[in-house]
Amino acid sequence: MKILVYGLGIIGASIAAGLKRAGHYVAGRNRTKTSVQYALDHGMIDEEAESYDGAEVVVLALPPRVVLRELEEGRFPDGCVVTDICGVKLPLERAVLAKSRNYKYVGLHPMAGKETVGIASSDPELFRGANLVITRNAGTDGAALKTVRALADDLGFGTIVECSAEEHDRMIALTSQLAHIVSNAYIKTPSACECAGFTGGSFQDMTRIASLDENVWTELFFLNRENLSREIARLTKELEAYRAALDAGNEDEMRMLLRRGKQFHEEFLKKNRRK
Amino acid sequence: MKILVYGLGIIGASIAAGLKRAGHYVAGRNRTKTSVQYALDHGMIDEEAESYDGAEVVVLALPPRVVLRELEEGRFPDGCVVTDICGVKLPLERAVLAKSRNYKYVGLHPMAGKETVGIASSDPELFRGANLVITRNAGTDGAALKTVRALADDLGFGTIVECSAEEHDRMIALTSQLAHIVSNAYIKTPSACECAGFTGGSFQDMTRIASLDENVWTELFFLNRENLSREIARLTKELEAYRAALDAGNEDEMRMLLRRGKQFHEEFLKKNRRK
Repeated sequence: MKILVYGLGIIGASIAAGLKRAGHYVAGRNRTKTSVQYALDHGMIDEEAESYDGAEVVVLALPPRVVLRELEEGRFPDGCVVTDICGVKLPLERAVLAKSRNYKYVGLHPMAGKETVGIASSDPELFRGANLVITRNAGTDGAALKTVRALADDLGFGTIVECSAEEHDRMIALTSQLAHIVSNAYIKTPSACECAGFTGGSFQDMTRIASLDENVWTELFFLNRENLSREIARLTKELEAYRAALDAGNEDEMRMLLRRGKQFHEEFLKKNRRK
Repeated sequence: MKILVYGLGIIGASIAAGLKRAGHYVAGRNRTKTSVQYALDHGMIDEEAESYDGAEVVVLALPPRVVLRELEEGRFPDGCVVTDICGVKLPLERAVLAKSRNYKYVGLHPMAGKETVGIASSDPELFRGANLVITRNAGTDGAALKTVRALADDLGFGTIVECSAEEHDRMIALTSQLAHIVSNAYIKTPSACECAGFTGGSFQDMTRIASLDENVWTELFFLNRENLSREIARLTKELEAYRAALDAGNEDEMRMLLRRGKQFHEEFLKKNRRK
């Protein structure tokens, strides 16, 4: 089975290298040729690809709008399984479903990454034990889904969740997109430059992902606008409740707010262990 | 030199065990006797203390209002060096300065901890490489400051910052208190129970400290009300800007907001490396 990975950034190159290591034949495609050469030199791919010809599985490891374009205009071989790694899914699924396609689409969202990007940060073990979300709908091809799940197993993913694109986008606004916004907003203070010696793990954790790629993330945010806007509104409303308790000198209310957050967290940790 | 640690929770017991390991004679005091017995059984302290008698250094590793009470009413030996580990400093310093004291006070805030609490979570290596803030004012005794710094070195702290209590409380509202509020607020969503499979490192980091002790943290927050209220207001205002950009469909504005956060983060990382 020939697998073609289009886009050799950290995620694409990690997928390519991981699948090649698992014994698959992997072709790599990338706009910038230096990354293709890097992948060949480091044994991450078996060959360079200039088109989708001959591919049985295509992994689109590209920014969301480039994936959208490929899903709409790409010349995939008949019956080819096409997947992507984007952090939003509903706009992609809608594009696929807008007309009849000669390929079989299944969405993937690996919950893994690093603060650094690019092929030099890639790692065939990047996905070991990580969560993976697979999106599918009533019309999703069963065999294609099975193929994609088998490749996910080869990459060593831990928990694999299957859900609709709608559910994915709703959940990811909370679990990933909001976290990136908060981290980016948190550090945006004149004190950021003088606070280094005053920080512990909590500050480091809170701001770890603040340095995001503004182009990719703007795309992701705007392809999931309503869900993300709702999550930001929810969080700011919650934060205002703590501030109101402080300003009113209401310690009982503060304790109640904190206790309630703790209960939600304990519930989450319980579910997270069970998953 | 006899050091007395009052309060054998995770921080107090870690300090006691670390100082004993460094060769000091350490007495332990705690309301609950099981913790004293645990500390004796595990070689964390040399003896139990029932009072401050004979202590040359006292470490108050207790909740802030208990520390306040001790600073005001404790019967410390003449000339004793008294320090504490509280996350707020100005109210303590004010209490000390309210009248002439027979002891010498220096404030400590170790930037270390765990999600778990209690003596069983303690570790003499807890402070290895961690940041430490020491608070002092114009009237602080030079010899007492030197004693405390030497003990901090024995515990293996990394960067040690000396500053005023005002500056400490202002910075800590940003670097620690706000992070705890955000984490606690972030998880407070009906989706928390269903989102386990959709989470990656960013969500885990964002919510790691959500399960805080609501009694201790309410005390800390209310002893630093104005600074914390201002920081919450700053963050909610920032968050609203991202939401406004989303709602207005203004991608340029979003990119600008994200780029600015990245710049602050890069500035912070630069200072953090240099510190």
